[in-house]
Amino acid sequence: MDNRGIGIFDSGFGGLTVLKEIKKILPGEKVYYFGDTARLPYGSKSRENIVNYSQEIAEFLKTKDIKALVIACNTASAMALEALQGKYDFPVIGVIGAGSRGALKVSSGGRIGVIGTKGTVNSGVYEREIKKIKADVEVYANSCPLFVPLVEEGMIEDEITKMVIERYLSNFKGRVDSLILGCTHYPILGDIIRRYLDGTGIEVVNPAIEVAKELKELLEEEDQLSDMAEVHDEFYVSDSPNHFRELGEMFLGSEIEKVQKINLEEYGRG
Amino acid sequence: MDNRGIGIFDSGFGGLTVLKEIKKILPGEKVYYFGDTARLPYGSKSRENIVNYSQEIAEFLKTKDIKALVIACNTASAMALEALQGKYDFPVIGVIGAGSRGALKVSSGGRIGVIGTKGTVNSGVYEREIKKIKADVEVYANSCPLFVPLVEEGMIEDEITKMVIERYLSNFKGRVDSLILGCTHYPILGDIIRRYLDGTGIEVVNPAIEVAKELKELLEEEDQLSDMAEVHDEFYVSDSPNHFRELGEMFLGSEIEKVQKINLEEYGRG
Repeated sequence: MDNRGIGIFDSGFGGLTVLKEIKKILPGEKVYYFGDTARLPYGSKSRENIVNYSQEIAEFLKTKDIKALVIACNTASAMALEALQGKYDFPVIGVIGAGSRGALKVSSGGRIGVIGTKGTVNSGVYEREIKKIKADVEVYANSCPLFVPLVEEGMIEDEITKMVIERYLSNFKGRVDSLILGCTHYPILGDIIRRYLDGTGIEVVNPAIEVAKELKELLEEEDQLSDMAEVHDEFYVSDSPNHFRELGEMFLGSEIEKVQKINLEEYGRG
Repeated sequence: MDNRGIGIFDSGFGGLTVLKEIKKILPGEKVYYFGDTARLPYGSKSRENIVNYSQEIAEFLKTKDIKALVIACNTASAMALEALQGKYDFPVIGVIGAGSRGALKVSSGGRIGVIGTKGTVNSGVYEREIKKIKADVEVYANSCPLFVPLVEEGMIEDEITKMVIERYLSNFKGRVDSLILGCTHYPILGDIIRRYLDGTGIEVVNPAIEVAKELKELLEEEDQLSDMAEVHDEFYVSDSPNHFRELGEMFLGSEIEKVQKINLEEYGRG
């Protein structure tokens, strides 16, 4: 038993879809969420910057005495996971590894599709991660840059969004047997994407669910589950806490009480 | 006569539409362009951060011995123009003032529309600026968050873009007599927006053209026009120079030879 909290970070709001899945299966765990709203989006930034940003955030979350750290951001997971793993006395897990393992579990024919931001797709990180586990798999990836602003506009059940989904996903039909939602915003479009792919046999994989499962297994193995009946999660951002609360509630599907702004420069890079 | 250069900055690429208009009417002026690609977009960030960022960029451009500074970014123009004006021995002008004056010139009935990012529209800066010049004017503003990613996807003459334009602009019909393109990305959609508004009598105002005209008048008044026959503009960014060059050429409509990455921290905030 271990009642210390879990740290989660993302470049902004998207990681709240990961928080949501974690809370579904681990409701007794207290979470410290950090959204780097001053520097989002990470997708178009260099590896060097992403590693620096991630180290600063990890140093901040360390001050909360966490027992595990989840990198909820695909870009940061791709670029900074190695730099953070082994540096702390708590384990660090990321959405990319979890999403890749989840896709391999459901892929019947070894043809895996990936959608994500330009940064994630161009980095080829899902392909590398998947092939590390199983070499004889085909990976087909495409970026969907309009999905994030459509989600942030709240245009979910919308004719325009349906057209954009068709534009981005038609190439995957007949080509893959599973599709990784490789950006934390995309699960918000999960239902409408599943409907578009209905009848194609393509299994949609949500890395947020996969990383939540891996976190649960990890805590169970180490006997580190919390025994708290009631927890209050804490939310921190690097800029615009009010904007975060408003938009964040859409991602989380529940209320966010309080969001605090943090100056990361005070915490260094470890 | 004054052969020193002009400084222009923006949060990223969009300001290149301003550079383009400046070069059209002032082809002999050398321009130093700075795109703050490490920290874009500015639209969702706080005033305090935007002022700090703008001061750092102004300090960098000062080292290039410029004779004028153009804030090509609507957000920075809204939030940091006052902080920069009067601080340097060169004049500082912004797209917001120029765009507002341009709209007042063509507005026949005193009903001006504004479209921009959420940051620009929520700040109400165009309305304040317009009413400072002429109080009895109605201003109707709406944000169009999908326009930027559509432009960056190169989806210009596209069925989806036409639907998004109709979604965002139908409310302006019958309500305004002029429409300010209050985001530097939007002039890329200028033709298709004009076509959608054809027959409505709404005049489309591009602040990039207006600020270029104001810059020209300023240099003429102060007898500071360059007499150079050939100039090579210089491009600087805070991150990802290659990505800037590729996407930037679409905005500029011409080739960008070289893009240099700068560490702004070395230049301070003046």
